[in-house]
Amino acid sequence: MRIVEIKESVVSIASEIKNAYIDFSKMTVSIVAIVTDVVKEGKPITGYGFHSNGRYAQSGLLNERFIPRLREAEPDSLLDDERENLDPFKIWNTLMQNEKPGGHGERSVAVGVIDMAIWDAVAKIEEKPLYKLLAERFTDQKALKETFVYGAGGYYYPGKNNEALVQEMRGYLEQGYKVVKMKIGGAPLAEDMKRIEAVLKELEAFIERGESAGRRLAVDANGRFDLDTARAYAREIEPLNLFWYEEAGDPLDYALQAELAGKYKPSFATGENLFSHQDVANLLRYSGLRPEKDYLQMDPALSYGLVEYLRMLEVLKQHGWSPSRCIPHGGHQFALHIAAGLGLGGNESYPGVFQPFGGFADHTPVHDSLIHLTDLPGVGFEAKSDLINLFYENFG
Amino acid sequence: MRIVEIKESVVSIASEIKNAYIDFSKMTVSIVAIVTDVVKEGKPITGYGFHSNGRYAQSGLLNERFIPRLREAEPDSLLDDERENLDPFKIWNTLMQNEKPGGHGERSVAVGVIDMAIWDAVAKIEEKPLYKLLAERFTDQKALKETFVYGAGGYYYPGKNNEALVQEMRGYLEQGYKVVKMKIGGAPLAEDMKRIEAVLKELEAFIERGESAGRRLAVDANGRFDLDTARAYAREIEPLNLFWYEEAGDPLDYALQAELAGKYKPSFATGENLFSHQDVANLLRYSGLRPEKDYLQMDPALSYGLVEYLRMLEVLKQHGWSPSRCIPHGGHQFALHIAAGLGLGGNESYPGVFQPFGGFADHTPVHDSLIHLTDLPGVGFEAKSDLINLFYENFG
Repeated sequence: MRIVEIKESVVSIASEIKNAYIDFSKMTVSIVAIVTDVVKEGKPITGYGFHSNGRYAQSGLLNERFIPRLREAEPDSLLDDERENLDPFKIWNTLMQNEKPGGHGERSVAVGVIDMAIWDAVAKIEEKPLYKLLAERFTDQKALKETFVYGAGGYYYPGKNNEALVQEMRGYLEQGYKVVKMKIGGAPLAEDMKRIEAVLKELEAFIERGESAGRRLAVDANGRFDLDTARAYAREIEPLNLFWYEEAGDPLDYALQAELAGKYKPSFATGENLFSHQDVANLLRYSGLRPEKDYLQMDPALSYGLVEYLRMLEVLKQHGWSPSRCIPHGGHQFALHIAAGLGLGGNESYPGVFQPFGGFADHTPVHDSLIHLTDLPGVGFEAKSDLINLFYENFG
Repeated sequence: MRIVEIKESVVSIASEIKNAYIDFSKMTVSIVAIVTDVVKEGKPITGYGFHSNGRYAQSGLLNERFIPRLREAEPDSLLDDERENLDPFKIWNTLMQNEKPGGHGERSVAVGVIDMAIWDAVAKIEEKPLYKLLAERFTDQKALKETFVYGAGGYYYPGKNNEALVQEMRGYLEQGYKVVKMKIGGAPLAEDMKRIEAVLKELEAFIERGESAGRRLAVDANGRFDLDTARAYAREIEPLNLFWYEEAGDPLDYALQAELAGKYKPSFATGENLFSHQDVANLLRYSGLRPEKDYLQMDPALSYGLVEYLRMLEVLKQHGWSPSRCIPHGGHQFALHIAAGLGLGGNESYPGVFQPFGGFADHTPVHDSLIHLTDLPGVGFEAKSDLINLFYENFG
């Protein structure tokens, strides 16, 4: 058994949307196909990978370092000792040979793209959906058939007014999402509060008796605020008891997060811009986040893949955090399988943006913010027609 | 005034040497030339940049993101408001537009390479050596004409025995270095102690009466050790009172560093694998390092350049650290100018490795571990013949 070919390409997900930190006018995504010599139904089993929005394509690093290392490796050195399959852990070590410690950015994306494709291939070779394979190998529980998802959007874009924002959110609610997320920090506080209030008013129509609309809305500052601004927003939104307040300050400013955590009662969420288990350990040690109510959003596609994500979960365990506090960033099927297979709290979903990478399998509607996983072998890209067609167009 | 051309290339610094973490068999360096329309002595002023060893070339990121952003910028938007010159800070903001926060690796190298070339050009346009320009712009002190340097080497390579190691160190001492550095952690503790003892024995011949040989030797574990191993080495080397004990554990494991700092009296050094001011703030907050005796080794060429390094120095100030505790990694002329201009404690030097990037201007011998800076405008690459020839060969 061996990898016979590794293909790589770049696609654009350019759009006019903005968060508080960047615009997406030149956003790109790396995609890869890893072709094996295992033939099923007359075709070689191929694993596919990509990465989430917000970090750029990694053609350079893929072609300069990571794909050559995989190509040059002795094929037997990449095989599972216990099963007729590739070994994602040995492959990870091969990818990362002669890489210095620290500096966890960019290369974490390149490795994440390859790692996704490897797990897709491994699960296809084992003829199981990835979530079942993960539950069997790494937990003593049965995999869940369905997972919590929330509808993320609410970006800023030119000419977008509150009516357009409310309409967008209403669309997600009508699609079956109970929790939605919008951006903040791209406008002054007073204006953002009007945006939030407009959405909350719309949410009133969807909640059950006795429920508060705030529990259905998360807000995301994308790391934009200094401590004073972060506090000012915290004071204004605290009475609303929102689902979460995401990335108030710089993702590495654990001291700012700790200052906030001492004074804000509802939930925080952060972690999408931490790309290694070492960074996650620091977050849990220093940021004052509360294991009983806060959320962690590390995204395996951006942070060296599932192999590193398993190390992050080990760090969580050491610090008394449950995997159920994790709701990864990225809105991709890979994290959906990881969520269902390893008992995470759920997954992000982009019903309206970053297509064809946002969203999950076709014909898996969202009900009560829960989505069913497909039982196709692998990650199930073949059940998401726009995405698999993009892979076929690029890689044949 | 404007940038008329940006050229980029990659050169190999492959060698057989190893530290405790990586080998350098495929190590590469990105080089750039930034050509301006300012003509002096019939030739356009050109700034040159490269990055330090240990992190790979960044052609991909340079060509995909950073060089295009600079090329596409409105030329006037890059100019200094107060002087007839380019503005490195505006250029930095242009380079980093639409980059998300966090994830400080790889791109920090790409930006560092460009930033070095920009400062070289800016100082040449101002017809001053960079160290004088820096002292004038950012301090109220006169620039130092000479700077402390130590001789770094002592790598592992195939067939190298203690005699070869001692000979290498003797060579540095004979060249005028009073302090030398060797690698540890690539061999078992007992073997490393024999290597250290062999070097200390050689150092005895070079010390003055009453001085201890240990004060002339630094050791570097390159982030290899877990806490138990780091402690075992600390116990063995503490009585030797070495110049410093560098990067015992993972560069982001501030908790490990804090554990060690509580129990080891002599100096530590770390920071070469932290690439942003946010990471440096965390190091100072959480690692237990002691401002009166420990050293910080952040390397501007790997960490978004001098613009970000100035932010790091601001973080130091906020935490009660003097710039004199900084002795940057990298052994390049750029950091030498920064050291002399901004009052750092000195600079690394690679008398024997990473040529032609290691070492400083020709005809500037080291005496008593001090080196004179040249007074050529810019970083003075033109006074280091092997390096400037490499630039000419690649860029004409």
